[in-house]
Amino acid sequence: MQHPSWPRVAVYGAGAVGCFFGAKLAEAGAPVTLIGRAAHVGAIRRDGLLFDSPGATRRIRIAADTGHEAVRDAGLVLVCVKTRDTADAARALAPLLRPDAVVLSMQNGVDNVPRMREAGVDALAAVVYVATSMPAPGHLLHAGRGDLVVGEYGAPPAGGGNDVEAARPSARAREVASWFGRAGVPCRLEADARGELWTKLVMNSAFNAISALGRSCYGPMIDDPEVRALMRDAIGECVAVARAEGVTIPDAGRLYEDALRLGEAMREARSSTSQDLSRGRATEIDSLNGYVARRGQTLGVATPVNRALTALVRLRERTAPA
Amino acid sequence: MQHPSWPRVAVYGAGAVGCFFGAKLAEAGAPVTLIGRAAHVGAIRRDGLLFDSPGATRRIRIAADTGHEAVRDAGLVLVCVKTRDTADAARALAPLLRPDAVVLSMQNGVDNVPRMREAGVDALAAVVYVATSMPAPGHLLHAGRGDLVVGEYGAPPAGGGNDVEAARPSARAREVASWFGRAGVPCRLEADARGELWTKLVMNSAFNAISALGRSCYGPMIDDPEVRALMRDAIGECVAVARAEGVTIPDAGRLYEDALRLGEAMREARSSTSQDLSRGRATEIDSLNGYVARRGQTLGVATPVNRALTALVRLRERTAPA
Repeated sequence: MQHPSWPRVAVYGAGAVGCFFGAKLAEAGAPVTLIGRAAHVGAIRRDGLLFDSPGATRRIRIAADTGHEAVRDAGLVLVCVKTRDTADAARALAPLLRPDAVVLSMQNGVDNVPRMREAGVDALAAVVYVATSMPAPGHLLHAGRGDLVVGEYGAPPAGGGNDVEAARPSARAREVASWFGRAGVPCRLEADARGELWTKLVMNSAFNAISALGRSCYGPMIDDPEVRALMRDAIGECVAVARAEGVTIPDAGRLYEDALRLGEAMREARSSTSQDLSRGRATEIDSLNGYVARRGQTLGVATPVNRALTALVRLRERTAPA
Repeated sequence: MQHPSWPRVAVYGAGAVGCFFGAKLAEAGAPVTLIGRAAHVGAIRRDGLLFDSPGATRRIRIAADTGHEAVRDAGLVLVCVKTRDTADAARALAPLLRPDAVVLSMQNGVDNVPRMREAGVDALAAVVYVATSMPAPGHLLHAGRGDLVVGEYGAPPAGGGNDVEAARPSARAREVASWFGRAGVPCRLEADARGELWTKLVMNSAFNAISALGRSCYGPMIDDPEVRALMRDAIGECVAVARAEGVTIPDAGRLYEDALRLGEAMREARSSTSQDLSRGRATEIDSLNGYVARRGQTLGVATPVNRALTALVRLRERTAPA
């Protein structure tokens, strides 16, 4: 069976997540350009991307650039910038994009797509499940998973007007899923990705800040009854806010069990928030526990634990890295 | 006017707090022995105690020992061990104490006196307000304040049976206050110290864990609206637990204002919890936010923020110092 041709792919903000999915597409034959920081771009141009995955470490030749030009002829643009840069990224991309380009937000947080729409970029949402980090320029460390859920943000563009039609994943979402599927990336489709985005936010709210503040990987967290109780509190608040938003999401008990399984599957992982703090970088806390707390305040849902975690991470952001 | 003679004083567990008050009494003429760790004792015997206080740094000659013998002839024993060592300390002291010795708990937390009573030591409670640390063996750094509130724990031994009599500070509390007063240590008397112990616990619950987890001194904490909101939450829970305990304590709004003033007066201070974590030592969290959370659970008072702070500090205790 012949595969249809690949789109040109631009990875905008190629950190750990962007390098991972860009590399998977490149290995499958797609023409991919990683757009990222000078240090990574220099290392990748010189030595290729060191894809460091248990039992499957290899170097991957892949185009890399610090400039935006590769976006101009891309049929697929993976947006992987930090959530605090979402609006800036959308404004930079808007004048460059081909009219038929598919833009996929592969970021943490639940509001990247509406924030990009405000800048005129109508993106799809991907919910990313992968444990990766960049311990050195051009060095991608893959610690676990590597799968996606893709869908529209909110109701998909009406195909026929009846409920059955509206509940189908959009054509562009199906196309994106087929590309990732060909690259060996498990990619589940949802008509409306919001429930999955919030489910991921629940997981991030349970792990990210606690891992950072406790300077712990996930295993010791889920082994500790007190930390589990804290995670359960954070999850409960997050689910209450999601429901107040009108988002369909599993109940808190089920998500808590999912969180324990996730921690068990990724015992050695440290959160991106922890990595950010240890490098003295700003975190994405505003899009994680901070978003839950902010929306909770607006919607009248008490979120003392998410507030506490947010305030503590922000306080840590202003002190020296460790 | 002649001062009556001084009691012999033993400071049991002479860390920063014990060295501070022991030194004040010694400078006023009391025969004081600091009982502490070998490193401190060695340095103090060799060079005296370096009392490092803004504008008044000096070396103080003072007896120091690693053994318990000095307790045997002491008329005043200042117990300054970490709260996790309270029961062990009381069991060690009980067989050594003179029948007329006055034992004064100068520790954090609200339940040291009842825990010592279980071991047969009937101590007075002191609530200590001082910012000190030991940056090196024999080196006491004094950053602010240095005053006490002293009283019985619970109702004082009945003097006459009527309410007026019962509300008077006990004779031994008055004696202790007179000794500290002669040494230039402001010492307020309370008949029942529990309200003041809880008030101090409120302050510790608002500052200690947050300073440690955020790796921040107090000034930046009170400057940050989010951290202030977190402190207000922690204080509110603590006051609710105190009231459920039947302890008379000011209302949460007033204590929050007090906390802001304390933070302003001690902008450069870091909490003892922060110092403990940065040295890789166990903290007193079980007697601080952990106590609030535990008593809250027993008494049916929700304490999500104190639970969160406790779980995070405990998680940090198990990771490497920084």
